[in-house]
This record gives sequence, structure tokens and C-alpha cells, in this order.
Amino acid sequence: MPTISRKGLLMPESPIRKLVPYAEEAANNGKIIYYLNIGQPDIKTPEVALNAVKENDIEILSYSRSEGSDTYRKKLATYYNKYDIKVSHQDIIVTTGASEGLLFLFSSIMDPGDEVIISEPFYANYIAFSTSSGVNVVPAVCSIEDNFALPSIETFEKLITPKTKAILICNPGNPTGYLYSKEEIEKLAALAIKHDLFLVADEVYREFVYDGNTHYSIMQVDGLEEHAVIIDSVSKRYSMCGARVGCLVSKNKTVLQTVLKFAQARLSPPTYAQIASEAALDTPQSYFDDVIAEYVERRNTLISELQKIDGVKVAKPKGAFYCIVELPIKNSDNFAQWLLEDFDINGETVMVAPAGGFYSTPGLGLNQVRIAYVLNKESLIKAVHILKEALKVYKD
Amino acid sequence: MPTISRKGLLMPESPIRKLVPYAEEAANNGKIIYYLNIGQPDIKTPEVALNAVKENDIEILSYSRSEGSDTYRKKLATYYNKYDIKVSHQDIIVTTGASEGLLFLFSSIMDPGDEVIISEPFYANYIAFSTSSGVNVVPAVCSIEDNFALPSIETFEKLITPKTKAILICNPGNPTGYLYSKEEIEKLAALAIKHDLFLVADEVYREFVYDGNTHYSIMQVDGLEEHAVIIDSVSKRYSMCGARVGCLVSKNKTVLQTVLKFAQARLSPPTYAQIASEAALDTPQSYFDDVIAEYVERRNTLISELQKIDGVKVAKPKGAFYCIVELPIKNSDNFAQWLLEDFDINGETVMVAPAGGFYSTPGLGLNQVRIAYVLNKESLIKAVHILKEALKVYKD
Repeated sequence: MPTISRKGLLMPESPIRKLVPYAEEAANNGKIIYYLNIGQPDIKTPEVALNAVKENDIEILSYSRSEGSDTYRKKLATYYNKYDIKVSHQDIIVTTGASEGLLFLFSSIMDPGDEVIISEPFYANYIAFSTSSGVNVVPAVCSIEDNFALPSIETFEKLITPKTKAILICNPGNPTGYLYSKEEIEKLAALAIKHDLFLVADEVYREFVYDGNTHYSIMQVDGLEEHAVIIDSVSKRYSMCGARVGCLVSKNKTVLQTVLKFAQARLSPPTYAQIASEAALDTPQSYFDDVIAEYVERRNTLISELQKIDGVKVAKPKGAFYCIVELPIKNSDNFAQWLLEDFDINGETVMVAPAGGFYSTPGLGLNQVRIAYVLNKESLIKAVHILKEALKVYKD
Repeated sequence: MPTISRKGLLMPESPIRKLVPYAEEAANNGKIIYYLNIGQPDIKTPEVALNAVKENDIEILSYSRSEGSDTYRKKLATYYNKYDIKVSHQDIIVTTGASEGLLFLFSSIMDPGDEVIISEPFYANYIAFSTSSGVNVVPAVCSIEDNFALPSIETFEKLITPKTKAILICNPGNPTGYLYSKEEIEKLAALAIKHDLFLVADEVYREFVYDGNTHYSIMQVDGLEEHAVIIDSVSKRYSMCGARVGCLVSKNKTVLQTVLKFAQARLSPPTYAQIASEAALDTPQSYFDDVIAEYVERRNTLISELQKIDGVKVAKPKGAFYCIVELPIKNSDNFAQWLLEDFDINGETVMVAPAGGFYSTPGLGLNQVRIAYVLNKESLIKAVHILKEALKVYKD
């Protein structure tokens, strides 16, 4: 039998999705599951986006341009300008989700054996994109004790080697909910300039910022034009995860030209989803006001309920809709599977994402889970109650 | 300024798309262009697919499963069974176009430095997927003199080295329109088994087979189960290039499990497009009968018109909707650009795809172009007339 590749063997299984078969088995057995494991919001997609697709008058579902349709890119530029990110449509390439944007970027700026520094814990698929590109992840470890704040710049700088090509952050962060301050962004920018690195920011949660804080983008830093690349997506912003539309934004023309070659090879991003995404830019501010008020209430509920459980530690997120929770257990992979297979209260259980997959440092995160507060307040209260009771009886 | 990757430098620009700026400039100047360069059919998408999207009742545009929705995969299995390809939904992973399927497969079965043998000329983006995966393409050169038939198995076998991991064919072929006979497929299958290689077939043009011929799939060969992988797409079958839905089909469970890890990292294929693709499977046979009659007429018109031009050589395609045409010129890149920039008849010109990009052997294909017969008969006659007049005055 012909063999698969070393790369294929090295590819990690998604820590979020690998428990899905157990969840399906549990659901088939009639168990009710509160899904806290995945960033699939229960928030409705804006009607303006849904209607644009329903009312489309396409007769031939054609390719779009590889870089995305002109009308969508022009409207996207206006969106960024509102956030003080000074770009034109020529600085934007539409991608099939943020995932494709990161994959194309990794291939465009790094060769096998190169290194990318990522603040840890990080979005699990960053490891997958790195493995797929043959790139090594160097983690800048953040700690739940510090609320996952960025390590000192001195610590960060020590991680830089001749192989380092880029620093990657997620702001606000998945899985931590951490929001970078303007000062932190400026320090990272100075480091990128000093060592001639790319600074890449996954800013897909830009709007999800709480407690009166403001999001500060890497593309607001003067002098960082050739170094800064934003990865973005409509998935969370408009609760349109199934669209599979994102984009890559940069003032660095060489990066854009290179990414475009990868984009041309896959022909174009999906046409229907671009129609939805372009229309979504007309979503009224009231939609976001409502959504953000909802998330703040959910977060407050979740955190206060979690803090009532003995031995549980949680860092209060300032953005996005995730938090990392430390539990009085040894191995969250086993715990999460046990919750699905062997535990319930009146036929109900919870599904959480084991946090090990959000770390590349061996041994870290094993007593942590990521919780996505994408369920309503009542469900969250019930879910945390189930978690509390489960911890009382669970044996590692 | 931080530098881009070697891989990024090596990535080829799409030979089909790199002339687009010249075409846009010409169109802006009021020139009418007959687009023979790209496989974007003018055939209408089946109404059953378009209507399914218009009538969708989605309220939250959610992720689908990474391997594609169950209902779509089950219906796809039925489609394959009709073609004597005995698979279940568990043998299918839905991808974002055939492009993504090939990219995931290359990463799953080959490491950087490995080799894939591809019959040449081949679909240009195969080079891009190979470069992106660090894989070396070894061409099995076919000739317009032989109507692009497969080289002898002895010639093929000589290309195999310890680095060879796979043989890739496109059947029927883009850009040649070549249709592999059952005997040729069986010979390739025997070679794959003998040398323990994967045999990969891009079968996106399965239905587009003319003159009473039948398509014979690699997955109809007994004993090839662990070696055969089909790459497929809805793009051409239903004139739905903008959907961006394809799939990968194999009985090799290890391949599927590995591809699934890459698929999980990008979360899911596009939801709206899966709705359209699932509905498209209900397209009535009369649609295909009409489309195929139309393509046969176009092909016959195109070939007979081309054969009237002095110094022009063309291989008659038995499938798909492309042909490779040899012209009495030295460099088709320059010629194609000149047609757009400096030539017209009454304000009309043609756009063709220079064929150099469909070869990896240096120097081959420079006097050839690929013509896609995706325009109606009248337009094709006009376009070939323009080509004929252009050749009279063009100087290399």
C-alpha cells in the first residue's frame, strides 16, 4: 500500500473537532449537550446578508476574480477606514476564510524550517497551518496568572533567531479573550521593525471588545506598513461561519503579489458567500450593539458562575467570546470525553474543548479547557452547573 | 523590509490569469473581446441548483462538517454509483473546489522533494499545487502529433524513481481534451500497483465525453482500491465555477483520515455552495444532453474553422471543452498579449491562453495556445476569423 507523507502524519487532529464522534454518539443516545466547545455563535446572521443571497439574480454561477470581487473589496476598504486602518481595495485579497488567508500567508513569507513566534495559548489551527507549511512554531508563553498578558518584550526578543520570519498574534485573542493594549502593539511593532520581521494579526474579533476598551490594530502603527499583515474574516463578525469568506490586508505589495499567486491557483473565493459578505457590510450598528451587550452579559454570567466552583481558575476576557478555564483535573482530553460518554444530569451534559491543543509547549494546558460563551445566559448557567457537579465526581 | 519565501518566489503566476490586466485595459478602451482563454462556460447553471439557494431558510449561516454535509455526501455516493464507482459517503470528503482537494492530497501523500508524474501538457495549476507543496513534477510528455495519447507504458515506467509517490492524470484532459481508454487506465493502474504508487485522476469533466465514447474511471479498476484517488468538482459539470465545491474520493482510509486533518484545519467547505451542489445532483438528464450536443457542435465548428488556417495544427478533443492549437508563431505569450493590446478587427479581438504554462518541460508549448470552446458557435466562428487575420499580420 502506498504510504502517506511525514507531513500528513505530523498534522494535528483538530482538538475542537476530534471529540465530535463522542458528542454524536451521546446525542444519538438522547443526551442533551451544551456545546461550549466551538466558536459557532447562536446569534442570527444579519438579515441584510441573508436577503442578498435569497434575492440574487445569478444565471451563471461564475468565477470571481482571484483577489475577490472589486465591489466587495472597495466596500471593505471603506469598512477598514472607519477603524482608522488606511487601506484601499488594492491592499486587500479576499480569501476563503481566515484559514486560507493564513495558509497562503505562511507559504508566502516562510519556507520549511523557518520560525513563527506565536503568543501561547493560541488558536489551535495555527499549529495545523504551520505543520502544513513545514514552519516551526516558537511559543511566547502567557500565563493564566497574568490574565494571559503578553510576556515582557525582553522575553519575546530572546525567542528571535535567524530563522524567525514573523510574529503572529490574535487580537482580541482566541482562546484567551485577551485584548492587546496600544502600548503592547507598539512594542511588538518596534520589535518587528528592529529584527525585520512580519507582524501578523488575526483580527477577526475586532468588534468584540468589552468594558469600554478600544481595539488597536497593527495597521494603525505608523512606519509598520511593510511589516504588518492583517488576517480577517466575516465568520464571527456577522455570525456567518459557513460563508467561508475572509481577507488578507497589507500595504506590502510584494506580500500581496505573492499571496495573489496562491490565490490564482485556487481560482476564486466562493461567489454566493461574497454576495452575503458584501451585503453584511450594511449591517446596522444596532445589530452590533445588541450582540455585544449579549456577549458581555454572557461573559459576566459565565465568569461569575465559574468562580463559584472550588479549584477553578479563570482569566476574565476583555474581548472575543472565549475563555481559558483551569480545572482541578489532570487531563482535560479524558475529562471532556468522559463528560460526553459517562456523565449527565437528568440526561444533560456539556462539551468543552480540551486546551492542550492550544499550546505547543508539551505539558501545558492539560488541566485547562476552552469555553466559548456562544450560548444564551440560561444555558450557560445550566452548563456551568453540570460542570460543577461533574467535577465533584470525576476521578482522573 | 522582511523578505518573502523562496516558495513564494517559485510560485508560478497563472498563465490563464496573468493576461487579465491587458484584457481589462482593452475592454476599458471599448474593445470587444472573445474570451477563449478560460474554462468559464457560458452555459446556464441548472435552475434546480440556483433555486435551492434562493429558497434557503438559513437563519444562522453555520459551519458544516469539515468533510462536508452528510446529506450532500450521501447523495454524491448515489451519483458515483450510477457511474459504476462503488463508494459510500464515508469515502468522500467535500472540498472547496477541486483545487483544495488536490492541495490537501498533495500534502497528505507527498513531502517536499517527492515526485509526481503528470502527463504533459497538463492543467497549469498542477504546477502551482506542486510548488506550494514542495513537490517536483516529472512530466510524461505527450505530443500533438499523436493527438496527445499517453506515452508507452515503458516510457512512463522509466520516469519512476525512488522519490515517485504518485501519477496524476486529468481524464478527460484539460488542456488537451484527451480521453483515456479503458486499456490505458488499466495499464496505468498496473504500473501504480507494481511500483506502489498512488494513481490520482482529476475527473471533473466526466460527463463531457463525445462521439459515443464512454468515460472509464480509475475507481472502476478492481484491485486499485488502496491506490486510486479521484478529484472532482461541480464547477464545469453544472456550470457552477463560482460555487467552489469539489470533492476527493478514495477507498484508502489512511488517505481520507489524513486529508480530513487538513480539512479540519480550514473548518468547512462553503455552506451556500453545498446547498447548490446538493440540489444540482437533481439536474435532469435533458440538461446534460443539451449541453453535450452544444459542446459537440462547438468543437466541430472550432476544429473545422481552425483547420482552414495555414500553418495551424490542432488535435481533435474527445472530451472536456479545450483544445491545444499549434500556431505558426514563436512565442504565444507575446502573441496573446499583442492580440489584446495591438490588434482588432472592427474593434473586436480574442483572448487565448498561452500554452507554455501547461508544460513543465522548458521550451515546450511556446508555439501553442489553449482554446476553451465555451462560447456559442457564432462567436467561435468570429473568433477564429480574428485569429486567422491576426496571424497574417503578426510578426514574432
